[in-house]
This record gives sequence, structure tokens and C-alpha cells, in this order.
Amino acid sequence: MPQQVTMDKIVALAKNRGFVFPGSEIYGGLANTWDYGPLGVELKSNIKRMWWKRFIQQSPYNVGIDSAILMNPEVWVASGHVSSFSDPLMDCKECKSRFRADQLIEDYIKEKELNISIEGWTNEQLMEFIKEHKVPCPKCGAHNFTNIRKFNLMFKTYQGVTEDSKSEVYLRPETAQGIFVNFKNVQRTTRKKIPFGIGQIGKSFRNEITPGNFIFRTREFEQMELEFFCKPGEDMEWFNYWRKYCMDWLLEFGLKKENLRFRDHKKEELSHYSTATTDIEYNFPFGWGELWGIANRTDFDLRQHMEHSGVDLSYMDPATGEKYIPYCIEPSVGVDRLMLAFLIDAYEEEELENGETRVVLRLHPALAPIKAAVLPLSKKLSENAYKLYDQLRNKFVVDYDETGSIGKRYRRQDEIGTPFCITYDFDSENDHCVTIRDRDTMEQVRIKIEEVEKYLEERLNF
Amino acid sequence: MPQQVTMDKIVALAKNRGFVFPGSEIYGGLANTWDYGPLGVELKSNIKRMWWKRFIQQSPYNVGIDSAILMNPEVWVASGHVSSFSDPLMDCKECKSRFRADQLIEDYIKEKELNISIEGWTNEQLMEFIKEHKVPCPKCGAHNFTNIRKFNLMFKTYQGVTEDSKSEVYLRPETAQGIFVNFKNVQRTTRKKIPFGIGQIGKSFRNEITPGNFIFRTREFEQMELEFFCKPGEDMEWFNYWRKYCMDWLLEFGLKKENLRFRDHKKEELSHYSTATTDIEYNFPFGWGELWGIANRTDFDLRQHMEHSGVDLSYMDPATGEKYIPYCIEPSVGVDRLMLAFLIDAYEEEELENGETRVVLRLHPALAPIKAAVLPLSKKLSENAYKLYDQLRNKFVVDYDETGSIGKRYRRQDEIGTPFCITYDFDSENDHCVTIRDRDTMEQVRIKIEEVEKYLEERLNF
Repeated sequence: MPQQVTMDKIVALAKNRGFVFPGSEIYGGLANTWDYGPLGVELKSNIKRMWWKRFIQQSPYNVGIDSAILMNPEVWVASGHVSSFSDPLMDCKECKSRFRADQLIEDYIKEKELNISIEGWTNEQLMEFIKEHKVPCPKCGAHNFTNIRKFNLMFKTYQGVTEDSKSEVYLRPETAQGIFVNFKNVQRTTRKKIPFGIGQIGKSFRNEITPGNFIFRTREFEQMELEFFCKPGEDMEWFNYWRKYCMDWLLEFGLKKENLRFRDHKKEELSHYSTATTDIEYNFPFGWGELWGIANRTDFDLRQHMEHSGVDLSYMDPATGEKYIPYCIEPSVGVDRLMLAFLIDAYEEEELENGETRVVLRLHPALAPIKAAVLPLSKKLSENAYKLYDQLRNKFVVDYDETGSIGKRYRRQDEIGTPFCITYDFDSENDHCVTIRDRDTMEQVRIKIEEVEKYLEERLNF
Repeated sequence: MPQQVTMDKIVALAKNRGFVFPGSEIYGGLANTWDYGPLGVELKSNIKRMWWKRFIQQSPYNVGIDSAILMNPEVWVASGHVSSFSDPLMDCKECKSRFRADQLIEDYIKEKELNISIEGWTNEQLMEFIKEHKVPCPKCGAHNFTNIRKFNLMFKTYQGVTEDSKSEVYLRPETAQGIFVNFKNVQRTTRKKIPFGIGQIGKSFRNEITPGNFIFRTREFEQMELEFFCKPGEDMEWFNYWRKYCMDWLLEFGLKKENLRFRDHKKEELSHYSTATTDIEYNFPFGWGELWGIANRTDFDLRQHMEHSGVDLSYMDPATGEKYIPYCIEPSVGVDRLMLAFLIDAYEEEELENGETRVVLRLHPALAPIKAAVLPLSKKLSENAYKLYDQLRNKFVVDYDETGSIGKRYRRQDEIGTPFCITYDFDSENDHCVTIRDRDTMEQVRIKIEEVEKYLEERLNF
């Protein structure tokens, strides 16, 4: 990570240029909710589109679905979320502050530079550690905590016309279960054979006790999940296939290799149903954080849903007649934090030859919210410059800007990651050519106006 | 509407071919929730993409945003949703059935063929009508109803770690308010001048008492809304502009003119803040239903948010120095019911010359979930046919099918609306040509394999 990037700079750029605004800002906001502005919505859409293209459209194995956020509550009983999707919550009896016990300990371990991993610890173990190490309340310093209690992270709401428990439903905490419950429907209608995968992009909700770090951890967030079904025994092969596929995708769209790493989960931190899990982590300004989780979920989910629903979700191999419950490999990534990583990675303050500094977002052209900006050198040239803009926006997301010096306008586009600036100058009126400036090299080429569309098309085809 | 289409046929096709499945089906479903299958997700994405392209990308006026579903509850106080976004609810004291009073009356009016409009009636007026006409309970026939009470349609949930009223939040019942609260942020960061619009696509939630008609009315649904801000006095001009723009969009993507109509709201049915509202209605098998609502919302929303938040949301014309609160024109459409209209409109049972019948979905090629299918005439030809499929899926959503007779495979593709079938036959091995069959005309052309990509590109460029 370049030393220059800080979260403050990214948050400020995001707000000032229209990538991300604080949610409900005119009402003082709402606990770490965020709204995506005109540039943010394009960047996020491009990330989703490129995931869908590589993981669904171009894959001969995979198809997509879009399941509802509100599901039958039995789904979450079967998946284990009702009983165990919870955080260990604890209050300071003195100052009434509320904490996540595991986070409290992790902060303490970091501060004291201890070499301890608390992954997979029970509430009893956490409590014991706090007592043994006399971990103080970070707010008031007291040593007077309540016991740890489970706090379920699912948002609850009520469907239908009465608020009784019968109509209690949850906002889904993950998109994955929408895939598992549709496994049979998808397999039947697509006539897909194992191995095949089902992918989904959509909102999920987790009532996190301590959301934070801008759009890294939010209560409402968007996921891109693939559940890839394969034959037991072939699962680790596919696990490695998708582990590499995800990393390759990140590198293809421009994240720097040195800012990415695999972190394989140790045996003791694996979920009870998983035989292998790897996180792809990114080097955020606040430390390494999980970007993508790739997990071998075995046949846990399909088996759970079989048992709870009574519906047979096993698969019969049409060639061999063999019947089995498929194993499942799950690469799961959050769109919001992925977007944050792309923004951070692309951000650069570059010193120019003339001694000035420019901020440039070196976003991959496939992800850049605006592909090109048409800039008439003078307002006198508006008419024909605007005609070119008119033509190009039929094909691309393009901008038109005629205010301020040309240098200032270049900087504006650099700062939001626009790969190409098209300058229409006085010569253009006669030679019917424009100058195209490359964001990264700042080199300029002069080409015929009628060739601009093709020029962009060749460079924006992914 | 062709006589052949029925809701039953559409629902069956949707389920059997993977457009739409009942939500949480293996658990017996959940009150009119639906999951979009592999074809449904593509069709829905295409609808959203074409809306975004025409309304945002290609418009010189408009930009997009993507705001959070969970907003500060004050937003809904200001918008009027907390106080008055409710249905008139009523119970039969005898059989305990629950009804929407307005719907009960409308059904009664229809049955008795009365010529009365109850639009805009108060609860007192509704109650009086029921008593006067002795409207019976449709379930048990009794005349013993409770009084009408308001039932607020917003889903409530709790954010944060306690279930007290302080952390009570709503699932947004419309995306529009996410635009209004961001008006200033968007205007500032884009430096847009009035007139300009802000569009958004996203999920909304309404706790409807009586959802139904497949995906026409669901509690969880997706909206595409544009809020177009203009100068007071120019509002009716823009109202008419967007009214026509929406209708043109529907016609461009293939809805039949005879199945569409404008319905201008009469003065007495207008919302208190609206000076003009038009619905574009579609002729569904269950009757004419609202597809798109185009409303002149005046300065109601911005004014409300100014008053409640204390933030100045007025606009200063940079040319004249004039300061005013912009008026707003809102074209708002539901994606799910739009998709239903496209499915219904495209459905046809066509009698062929040989006396057989084929089901064909004449979806506009821009909307068709699968653009082309590669079909080897024999499994012996798989190798090279698959190579063509490999090449094409880099560019398009394509299918590959080698099972069953070629006629059967054509029918499969006709039924899901695939515009082009590409048949690789024994001659292809030598002449390096394939046959491309048009879904609608069933005419076939033979072209070079190397020209297939270009052939499709020319016909799928929107």
C-alpha cells in the first residue's frame, strides 16, 4: 500500500467527488450507513458486472439466480443461523458501554503485543481471558463487566398484518442460503450436471455491534457469492481452482499483488462444517482485512436443508447412476469492501515534472465510472464538442466539461479515474481531429473524430 | 392481449424453465415471495440495464445513485410515511377474516356493476358505504365488521444491540426518498444545473395486506425511479416530456401498443402534493394494472425535508441569481411487474404449417435472457460446435445444447425467447459455415463461422 493513502483521504475524495455519501446525512446520518453517489453507483455496477461476466456468463459451469431477501424462517433454523449466528456481547457495569468480548480481547492482544489467537474460542474461554489478564474497560478503565451473552446478528421484522411470532421473518444475513434452497429447482430447469455452480449478487444484513472503517463493515451490504457443487472427493481440487480464480480476478482488475495475500484458516478456526477455508486479504490502511472467503462447505448446507425440509436434495449422476449429496465450494466476497479496496489501491498522489502534484485514481478501465470526458478547449467550441459527446454517450458512460482551464479539467478527471480525456480544440474545427490524453501516461494522441468511438471500443472491451 | 395467455401458463412457464420460482419453496414457500431463476435473473438484469442506459447513461440530464435501504427514521416522518402510509384494515367479527376495506368495496362495486369511484375516500366514507350497501363478508356472508383502522405498510426492524424504540428503523417503502435526501450532495458533486434528474434502481418493501397476482404485487420488490428537478413553471412541460419518454421506452422494448394505455388521475384521486399524475397501465390477464406512475410532486418532498432537517435544499440559478425550491417530476416503475408484462406480451402459441403448435416468447433481443444457442446437429460434432460456444460466451450470454432432436431443441429455445439458434451440422466441418435460425420468422441463413460474432453484434446492439 502506497504510504500516501489514508482512510481520511479516501473518505474525503469519496464524499467530495460523489462516490460515497454518509447515509441520511441531512438528518445527522444513521450509524455507518452509506449512500453511493453518481460515481459510486457506476463503480459498484462495474465491479458487479465484471464479477457476473467472469463468474457466470463466461463460465461454462455456472448460472445465476436472484432470490428474495425475505425467506421462510425455517431456512435460518436449518442453516444454523437462528441458534448460532451471534456475537459475544458484554457491558461495562460502571460506564454502561457495550462491547464485543472477542474484539475487546483482540484489541488488548494487539496493544500488549501478545502472540495469541482467539479464533474459535467459546464464551467461557473469552471470559476467563478477560478475568485472568484483568482486561479493563477501554472507555472508563473499570474491571466490572457483565457476563457474556449471545447477540444474534440477524435483523428481525414482521410480515403480514399482525406482530405476532408467527409472522416473524429475518432479513437474510447472507445470499448463500437462497442458493441452497433453490438447488433442485435450478438443477432441474437448467439440466446442469455436476460439477456446476449457482451465483448470486444481492443485499444482506447483519446487525453488527461495531460496524466501521467506512464501507468495510456495514450492517447493510452487498455480496457476490458462488456456490459450486461438485462430487465428494473432487472438492479439494475445485477448492483450489476457485481459490486461484478469485485471486486472478482481483489481479486482472488491477489490485496490486503486494497488497494481497492468502490466509489459510488453521484447523482450530475452521467452522465445524468446513474442511478448508482461505481468506484473500487486502492490505487496508487500517491493516490486513478479509476481502474474499473461499470455503469448502462440504455437504453441510444441502444435508441440513434435506433434514429440515424433508425434500430430497441429493443428485443422481446420469452416467453412472450414482446418488450423492454434492459437496459445495463457496467463494464469497462483499461488494462494498471490494470497492473500497479498488479505490485505495488506485489512489496515487503523483509528483509531476513541473513540481505540482496530481491525485490520480488508476482504476482499471473496466471499473472506471466514467470512460471518457469530452473537453472543448474554449466555450466557443461547445457546439461541435457537444455533438461528439452526444454520439459517445450512446455507447459509453461519458462526461462533458467546459468549465475551468484545461489543466484543471484534466485534474478533475484524473481524480475520478477517467481513462481518457478528449480535447476538442480550435484546430479540430478544420482538421476534424481531437486529442486523446491517457490518464496514466498523460501522453496524447491526435486522431480523427470519426475514429474516436472505435478507439475507445478497442480499449474498453473486457 | 392475445386470448391464449393466462396467468397459469405464464406462472408454469416461469417455473418450468427457470424464470421465477416460489420463494423458499422447499419449506412450503413464504407468502407470495419469489426467487428469480437463471433465466429470470438475466431478463430482470436486462430490463434494469436498458432502463439505466436510456434514463441515466444516455440522458444528458440525469445521473444515478444507490442509497441505503435502511435510512434515518426521520426521513419517513418528513415524507409523511409514518403518519399516513397505511391501508384501511377491517375484520369480520364472525369468521375473523381480515380485509382491506377499499378492496372489499371495489370488489363489491365490480360485482354489482356500479359506476362509482372510491379513489380518495376517507375511512369514514368507506365505512358508510359498507353500512349503506350492506356489503357482506366475502368469506362467511355476515354483516358484522369491526371499525376500519390504519395499518402502516412499512416494515419495521431494530438496528443496534437493543430492541428499544430508539433503534427502530424501517425498510424503505420507496427508493425516492433516498434521492431527495441526497439532492444537495449530488448537485454539489456533479455541478449539475437545473433541470437535472437523479435515478435509482433498488429494492423496496411494503407490508401489503393482500399481495398477489404472481410477481405483480409483492411485499419485497424492486423499483426504478427517476426524480427530475426543474424550475417551477416549467414542471408541466417536463411532466409531459417524461410521460412520453416512458411510453416510448415501453414501445421500444416491444410491448404492444394495444396493451398499453395512459390513465390520467382525476383531481379527486390526486395525492395532496401532486398537481398531475398519469399511470401507464398494462392489460394484464387479470385486468388493466398500473405499470408506471408519472407524477408531478411539486416541491413537496424537498420542502418537507428542508423543514424537518433544517438544511437548506433550495437551488440558486447561477445565471440569474434566482433562488427557488425545484419542482420534481417522478416516473416510477416496478421492475417485477414490468418483467411480468414483458413475459405476458411476448408469449405466443403459434400454429405451424405442419399443424403443430410452438410456444414462442417474442422478447425484444435486448431483453432476451439468452442471446443465442449453439446446437450441434449430432453429438459427433460436439468438439467444433463447443469451440464456437467457447468463443461466443466471451461476448454474449449463450447456451449450448446437444441433447434431443434439433426440432425439440429449437422449441426449447423458442419457449425461453432466444433470438438466434446456431446449428452446427456435418457440412460445417468442411465449409466452416453454420446455419442461423431466426426465432420469429424461423428463417435460416448460412454464414461463415468467423462471421457469427459480427452477425450477432450487429443485431444485439442497443
